[in-house]
This record gives sequence, structure tokens and C-alpha cells, in this order.
Amino acid sequence: MAKKKEKETVKKEKKTAVKAKKIKEEKKEKTEKGAKLKVIPIGGVDGIGMNMTLLEHGDDIIAIDCGVAFPEDDMPGVDLVIPDFTYLLRNEEKLRGLILTHGHEDHIGAVPYLLKQVKIPVYGTRLTLGILRLKLAEHGIKNPDLREVFPGDTEGFGKAFDVEFIKVNHSIPDAVALCITTPIGRVIHTGDFKIDLTPTEGDSRIDLYRLATLGHKGVKLLMADSTNAEREGYTPSESIVGMSFDKLFYGCEKRIVIATFSSNVHRIQQVINAAVKYGRKVAVTGRSMLNVLKAATELGYMSVPEGTIIDPAEMRLYKDSQLTLLTTGSQGERMSGLYRMANGEHSQITLGRNDMVVLSASAIPGNEKLIGNIVNGLYKLGVEVMTVDTEECVHVSGHACREELKMMHALTQPEFFVPLHGEYKHLCAHASLAREMGMKSKNIMIPENGKIIEVGKRGLASGGTVPAEQILVDGYGVGDVGATVLKDRLHLAEDGIIVVSATVDFTILEMTAGPEIITRGFVYAKENERLMEELVDKSAELIRKFIYNGKPDMYTLKERVKTSLSSFIYSKTKKKPIVLPVFTENELY
Amino acid sequence: MAKKKEKETVKKEKKTAVKAKKIKEEKKEKTEKGAKLKVIPIGGVDGIGMNMTLLEHGDDIIAIDCGVAFPEDDMPGVDLVIPDFTYLLRNEEKLRGLILTHGHEDHIGAVPYLLKQVKIPVYGTRLTLGILRLKLAEHGIKNPDLREVFPGDTEGFGKAFDVEFIKVNHSIPDAVALCITTPIGRVIHTGDFKIDLTPTEGDSRIDLYRLATLGHKGVKLLMADSTNAEREGYTPSESIVGMSFDKLFYGCEKRIVIATFSSNVHRIQQVINAAVKYGRKVAVTGRSMLNVLKAATELGYMSVPEGTIIDPAEMRLYKDSQLTLLTTGSQGERMSGLYRMANGEHSQITLGRNDMVVLSASAIPGNEKLIGNIVNGLYKLGVEVMTVDTEECVHVSGHACREELKMMHALTQPEFFVPLHGEYKHLCAHASLAREMGMKSKNIMIPENGKIIEVGKRGLASGGTVPAEQILVDGYGVGDVGATVLKDRLHLAEDGIIVVSATVDFTILEMTAGPEIITRGFVYAKENERLMEELVDKSAELIRKFIYNGKPDMYTLKERVKTSLSSFIYSKTKKKPIVLPVFTENELY
Repeated sequence: MAKKKEKETVKKEKKTAVKAKKIKEEKKEKTEKGAKLKVIPIGGVDGIGMNMTLLEHGDDIIAIDCGVAFPEDDMPGVDLVIPDFTYLLRNEEKLRGLILTHGHEDHIGAVPYLLKQVKIPVYGTRLTLGILRLKLAEHGIKNPDLREVFPGDTEGFGKAFDVEFIKVNHSIPDAVALCITTPIGRVIHTGDFKIDLTPTEGDSRIDLYRLATLGHKGVKLLMADSTNAEREGYTPSESIVGMSFDKLFYGCEKRIVIATFSSNVHRIQQVINAAVKYGRKVAVTGRSMLNVLKAATELGYMSVPEGTIIDPAEMRLYKDSQLTLLTTGSQGERMSGLYRMANGEHSQITLGRNDMVVLSASAIPGNEKLIGNIVNGLYKLGVEVMTVDTEECVHVSGHACREELKMMHALTQPEFFVPLHGEYKHLCAHASLAREMGMKSKNIMIPENGKIIEVGKRGLASGGTVPAEQILVDGYGVGDVGATVLKDRLHLAEDGIIVVSATVDFTILEMTAGPEIITRGFVYAKENERLMEELVDKSAELIRKFIYNGKPDMYTLKERVKTSLSSFIYSKTKKKPIVLPVFTENELY
Repeated sequence: MAKKKEKETVKKEKKTAVKAKKIKEEKKEKTEKGAKLKVIPIGGVDGIGMNMTLLEHGDDIIAIDCGVAFPEDDMPGVDLVIPDFTYLLRNEEKLRGLILTHGHEDHIGAVPYLLKQVKIPVYGTRLTLGILRLKLAEHGIKNPDLREVFPGDTEGFGKAFDVEFIKVNHSIPDAVALCITTPIGRVIHTGDFKIDLTPTEGDSRIDLYRLATLGHKGVKLLMADSTNAEREGYTPSESIVGMSFDKLFYGCEKRIVIATFSSNVHRIQQVINAAVKYGRKVAVTGRSMLNVLKAATELGYMSVPEGTIIDPAEMRLYKDSQLTLLTTGSQGERMSGLYRMANGEHSQITLGRNDMVVLSASAIPGNEKLIGNIVNGLYKLGVEVMTVDTEECVHVSGHACREELKMMHALTQPEFFVPLHGEYKHLCAHASLAREMGMKSKNIMIPENGKIIEVGKRGLASGGTVPAEQILVDGYGVGDVGATVLKDRLHLAEDGIIVVSATVDFTILEMTAGPEIITRGFVYAKENERLMEELVDKSAELIRKFIYNGKPDMYTLKERVKTSLSSFIYSKTKKKPIVLPVFTENELY
């Protein structure tokens, strides 16, 4: 009996326990449903640059990176493109902080624009904040709340998030990936990364152990760099470039000019190492190059033996074989030092047969032609030119190729995957890589700027949209230039503008002054006098006709002259300039 | 005695003979000096396109090719760039003919512009003239003097030149190299070429025997295609692409869309072959594609089984697996069929998951970004995309790589060498290849547009210059757009224009109407009302100030307002729009 009772009690208890568990689970699920993790890419997932991703859970939001993009060909006059902060500003009270993965423009360039609108703490490693500090100072932003972190650190953000910083390799020191512990599980955001097993600084190797441990413990979602997802194999180690420099410097009698990205501190260090080894001085040109050199040395990321750096003006004191010149302009930028040197327009430096120029960089898509122009210019001067196309390996990428991406997936063993950072085709290639690794299609989602991804225990789902326009910066203006203005600019660029001015009098129905024709960007007015006269005659005819016939108001008159004169011009020239009538009404009668 | 006398006579005779020989040689040299061969590149040797080279000897000139170049980024609104015909027109009476090497735009595109100015016979092979005929008809040029030649033919040009046409391979059928026999020896001009040992048409292999024979007989000067002079190895055969098509078509259930150059007749033939083999119909879009298909079929360069070609509208009658679509747009051109399809804007064709798009072309430098945009657009539609970057070889170049160039040098064994067709860096790479082959540096000259190269028995020398501007075609205008107009267009594109209009009266020193501000391409006027008001106020202030203070004439008033308002705008916006004052003087008092 006792036994039976006991048994029943146990049974009952078990039942209760099962029930309780069920209730608990249901409750948990309910809570979860109310507070799924939202991943919101504001920029960086449909084009290179402007990286910014938000993570939102309940009352907490964190922002990861806040970069700029460079304007496209169809955005003339635009200086920069920055992310749309609308959603952030609308949810300012939830915003716990901005976390930066590394110090490149496409990850930190828009921070000043954000901090002008909202005051939040910014987290980053030492070099990242060092570079950011210079940038904020230029924008006149005082006392920003910058919080330095080290790889291995974990910081808490509200109730929802703990963020651990993990060392990765990239083309700038001090880059980190993030492991974000959230109520629904761990999220790993790689930032930009590559796997360099022989980095130039011994202790700077990516933390494979930590990534593997996290993977072993369980990673819910991986978000990873897709820039090189179309490239097979491995990105070579940065130290390969150092070996190439050694070969190029060895026995070289020429002056050696090296152009690279100013932020590539390890590359610059390797140039300095080679110069020191072969007894060369290093002159530096380019404001950004000088800035980074100063910051990186002060912060301990670079070691330059005293007396190595000289002023470009001192170069005349040395033989060619004793000189190295570090410069910017590796992307063919029109105002850069190298551009001016290649075109023989540099005030201090004249290149010629005794120079070897090393372009230690590859072309950012869209810059191929500009770089080609520089190379042609250098050849014309008789300069020897080394590029990524020549035999020695003078540049390696900072992004992981397919085999490295596979390694990242294998280490972190994520349940779900969202590719980040790249053009749409790169994201697709990365998604297909994840499938090759055995992940099911339903566990992968290709993100779109502004489209919320909801991450639950059971899967990924689309969850509405937030504003994610490209905000154009032009001069002091942020967002004051948009589609209409750009359309006008492109139109002006194609065929120019024709201004027709005249004074009209609607009382006596006469044109009392003009018409005068002024053009810009249309044709050589002086060499096309006949056409200009025709335009004046035609305008006069049109204005008179419309005044006589219709007693039109000023608006109608302008529209009619505009339309008719445009057709006339097209029939004569097959060009479509903007026609701008500027008519003054005579108010004296 | 007799013997002695005899001996003396012999001696005397010998002396006379020696003397005579010397005189003859001197005379010969003099003639030669008076009539060296002049090689004059008008275009095509410092950039891709606009190929045109003149050969001049005594009273005879021949022109080789007459192509267009496509406008650079800094030539907005320009449709085409054509060579400078000044020297030709100035020497019209010497001009014996224009010889075309093949039917590509960069070799024949400017012929209509030349024939509008001078009437000369044009020589070319059948397909070349077939394509040219369509082009001349579009330009309304009637009864051009076109003379068809066949590989193996020789034509005489004046006293100086005989030109033999030699079959070569290229990415268009019927391409020829030229062997020009001149008073100073043979000149070989390769045109664009590659060495295809397994071309798709059995009898179209480059005539290696003829080139070897000419080399054996003696070639004074080689002028050769340098486009791929930086690329190691061999360009793969066109037939490789056919094999790839076969693999892609085999078992494919999707509709296959192939974009390529309309002039690549062999490529199009291979698409048709694959389609026929796998029971697919071929729909064709793009005007140029339709034109070439028609011309090439009529002239016997293409064989299309009846019933293969269908109208795009008929596609709905077939399953995806029964369809192939041939289209233009492989360079990402904004108005092309493929561009509209990738952006979901095509009126007839909607692409999606059941389509595979093959970009059977590589990027012409400068088009990388445009093509990338197309690829991204296609991926967004779910389309499978094959490009030169994917595994299958869907495109091969039409130009010889380094090993083929070496073969050309080895076959023709030239005494002197002038690299043609390419950017400066390509010409340099080709020159360095010639040196690797054992040629002395003094026997090589890198040409420049407009710089005469004199070829004598003893060597190459510079011989002055001829006009060789880039002539810009914009609408109906040829040369009516130049540096100043382009500068204005670029300026307008950067920051737009501000027109300030007002009526002033210098008698009463008053502004009687205005000022009014009209902007285009500056900022959104409606959303920047405050700024617009400031501009009106500032203009009014400036105009009044200058009228009151200086009694300036209209010119001075305009200049002052322009300068001061520009500074004001820059200080407010950091933008530099063109400021255009339109002031009317009140003439009623």
C-alpha cells in the first residue's frame, strides 16, 4: 500500500513536474515572442561601405559600426554617403552604445555625424579610438564618451546584451570580432577579418581558440564579412608582402616610392623595416599618412628607429639608393600626392628613370581606370612600376577568402547565418558557401538595408522595415542633396544649361528688353555665333508669339518658351541642355 | 707596255667604277633622305580606341583604320571621340586610300566623319565593309567608294605603297594584318590579332606561313597590337567557349540568356550551335545584335538553321528549357536590354529563378562597376549568373598575350619595332617584350599620337608633329565641345548653378526689380527656404552696395556680385556652384 501510494505520489509529482515544465516553457516562449532579437542592417549589405548594424532586444539597442560609403558615379559633387539615423534617433532612449570593430572609414567615418545628433558611449580598441579621436576633433566634437576596450574584455549593454571583443586579423591593427550574448543565445559578428597565421606582429594572430570555444558552447547566429566570398582559397599573409619588399629593396639603386592606404599600419611598418634594413631614409607625404604615422607611433602600434623619417625637402641631401618615399594616392585619387607626381605637377617631387614606384594596394571597384591613368603617367616619366599585376606580391587583401570563411563557419558552428559586408553578389556567394558547409537554406537569410531580421529559437524571419536611405553629405549639407538635385546635376553635366533672359510687359504686350542668351557647358559660344544668333532670334519670336496670342501669365510664358526652345535646340544640335527662362515683368507702367 | 697600259686602264676603270658606285650610293642616300617613310599615329597609341595610323612616303599617304574612342569619365555628355583629320585634310591630294583591318568600332567608327570631309576609296574585307555600309547609310553617306579585298590580295597605292592583306584571328571574322611594301622595305601592321590554332571556322586560322615567309624575305618594321602585352601566356582559343556553352546547355532546365558583343560573330554562332544542339529556340534583342545577325548571315559568315530564331514575343509559347535569349549589354550599358532586365524594367522580358544569365564578355576598363551593378541586380532577381569570374570559360580575349606576341615577332623577324594599340603601359610592356626577344632598344620606338616616326635604312627617328587632338562628338556637333565647355559641365555636375536675376537702373542708381534666385543642381530649394532667403537678401545687399558705391558698368557689377556671392555661398554651405548674374538694365528713363 505504502509502496503503491508512494508510487502514485511519485507519478503525481512527475505529472505536476511535467505540467510545470510545460507551463514554464510556454511562458518562456511567450516572453520570447514578445522579445525576439532583431538584427537591423542600416547599411553595408548592398554595396561596399557604410557599414552599420543594429541589434535590438526588448528595451535595448546596440549599434555596431557607423561607416561612410564613397559616392557612386551618379552622385556628382557628393562628398560622402552616411547611414540613415532615423530609427536610432526615434529610439534614442533604448540606445546603449555604439561599438566599433576597427578604424577604417567604412566603419567609423560617419561617427561624427551620429554624435552631432545623439550623445552615446562609443566602444573600440585603442587604435580605433585613436583614429576616431582625430576625426572627431576635426569636426569640433568636444568630450566624446569614448571607452577603450581590449580583446578579451566583455562589456554589458542594458539588460539584453553582453559584448565580448575577440582579436581578428585585418588590414589595420586592433580589429576585433564581437561575441554578443543575448537572451536568445550568442551572436558572433566578425567585423572585417582575415585569418593570418603569420602576421607581422607575433601576438596579433586572430584568436582561433576563443572562436572555437564559443562554437563549442553554442553560437545561435553568425554574421560575417563577405567582401571576398567570391574568391577561392586563402588570402596570403601580410608577411608575404614584407618578403617582397625585401626582394625589391635588395641591391636596388633607384629611389623607391611606395603608395599604400594610410591606415595599413603593418604595411607601413614593413616599408620602414625594409628601408632601415637597407640603409634608406623614409620621407612621408600626404596628410592622412602623416596623421596615422604619428598616431600609430604614439599609441605603440609602430616602431620607427630615430632618424629614419626625414622631411621630403631633405631628400636632395641623399642619393636615390638611400631614399624611400611613402605616399597616399594608391587609388588614383585626383588630389593625392602620387597623382600629382605621375602628372609631373608635384611641387617638391619629380619622378623619372631613377625611381621605382610600388602600388601596394589593389583597386577598390570603380577606381581601376584612375589607377590605370596613374600607371600610364608613371611609365611616360620612365618610372619602373610595380603593381598587384606584376610578379612580386606587393599587396594582400585584408578580407577572408572562401577557405578562411569556411574556417570561420567551422570554428563557430552557428545555427543561423546572415552574411554581411559586401555587394549583393558577395552576400549570395557567402550564403552558398554556408550551404556547402551543410547549413540548411531556411537557416540563412540574405539581409537588406533597412529590413529587420527577427531571430527566434526556431529560426529567422522578416520583421518589417526601418528607414535606411543613403544620406548624402555635400559640403556642410547633410541630406540637402537628393534624387532631384542629382538628376539636375547629371543633366547639367550631359548638356549644360541655357539661360534666356528678357523683360516683358503684359500691359502693352511687348518684350521691352532682351532676349539675351547665356550658356554654360553647352557649346563654345564664341565659335558658334550663328547658332547663338539663331537662339536669340528664336527666343524673341517665341516670347512675342506667346505674349501676343495668349496673354499668358508669367508661369505659362516660361513653360512655353522652355518647351519650344528645347525642341528647337534639339532639332538643331541633338543636345538637350536645361533651358532656364529668366523673365522680369516690367512694372513701371 | 701594252700590259701595263691595260693594267692602268683596268685600274682607271676600277677607280671610275668605285667613284660611280660612290656617287650612286650618295645619290641613293640623298633620295632616301628626301623620302624617308613617315609613320604617323593619329590615334590609338595612348589609350584604348580611336585607332588611326598614317604612312607617308614622298607624294603618297595611306591611312590605316579610322576608329572612335568612347568618352572618358571627365567628358560628360560626349557621345564619341574621333581622330583629328587636320593633317589628312591638309594633304588631301596625297591621300591614296583608307585601309581597314577589321569591323570593330574602334577601327571603323570614325569613317563616316572622315568621308563627310574627303572622298577617298576605302579598302576592307567583306564583313568589314558590310558593317561599314550599315554605318555609312545611317549617316546618310551615299555612294561611298568601298573596295572589297580578300586575304592574299595585294593593292597598289600611288608610287610608294603596295598593301597585301593577311588573314589573322580576332574577336570578329575577316580581320587582316597588312604587309605594306614601301621604298624602304616591308612594314607589317598586325591590326588587332590573336593566334587561334583551333578557330571555330576551319579555314579562318591566322596565315602563319605567309607571315613566316615575309619574315624570311625581310621585314623592316613591325607595328603590332599591344592590348594584352601585359598578360603572360596564350589567349585561349574561341572554341574553348563553345565547349563551355555545351556544358552549360547540357541538361539545363532554365532559360539561358547570353549577353555578348554584337560584333562577335563566332561567339554568336557558337550560341546558336549550342541552342540548336539542345533543341532551343533563339530570341534576339538589341538593335545592334539584330543588325549584325542579319548582315553576317547575308554575307555568309553565319549559318542559322531555319526556324531557330524567334521573336522575343514568341517566347511565351515555349518552356524555359526550350529557350535561349541573345542580348547586348555585356558592358553594363545603361540603355541596353540586359540593364533593363536586371533592373526589372524590360517591357517584354522578366528574369527570375528559372533563368541563367551568361555574361560572355570581359569588362572594358572603366566598366567594371556598371557590370557589377548588373550582376547584383540579377542576383536579387534570383537569377543564376555566369561571368568570366566563374568556373566555366565563357569568354576569351580577341587579343594576343605575350607568348603569341613573341610568336609574331619570331615569325616576322623585324628590324625595327613600333608597338601599337593600347595604353602607354601596354606599349611599354610590348617594347620590353621586343627587347627580351633580342631587339636593341634603339630599334624600338614607343609612338605618341601626332608624333611622326621617320623610318630610314639605318633606323628610327622622331620627325616633328602633326595635329592629333581628341575631337569630341556631341549630338550633331563635331568639335563644338572642348576643354572649357567640359570644365563647365564638370563644375555644374559638382555643385550646380545659381542664377541671380535683377533689373538695375544706373541713372537713378536703383535696383528696380528682383533680385530673384533660381537654382539647378544646388540643394533642394523647397527644403532650404532659409538659405534661399539669405541668398536673396545677400544679393540685394551686394547689388545695391555696388550700384551706390561705384557707379559700375554692367560688366563690373556682374563680376563683383559673382565673386562676392560665391564667397558668401561657400562660407554658408562649403559648396561652389556656378553663380550666373543675369541683370537687365532699365532703359526706360
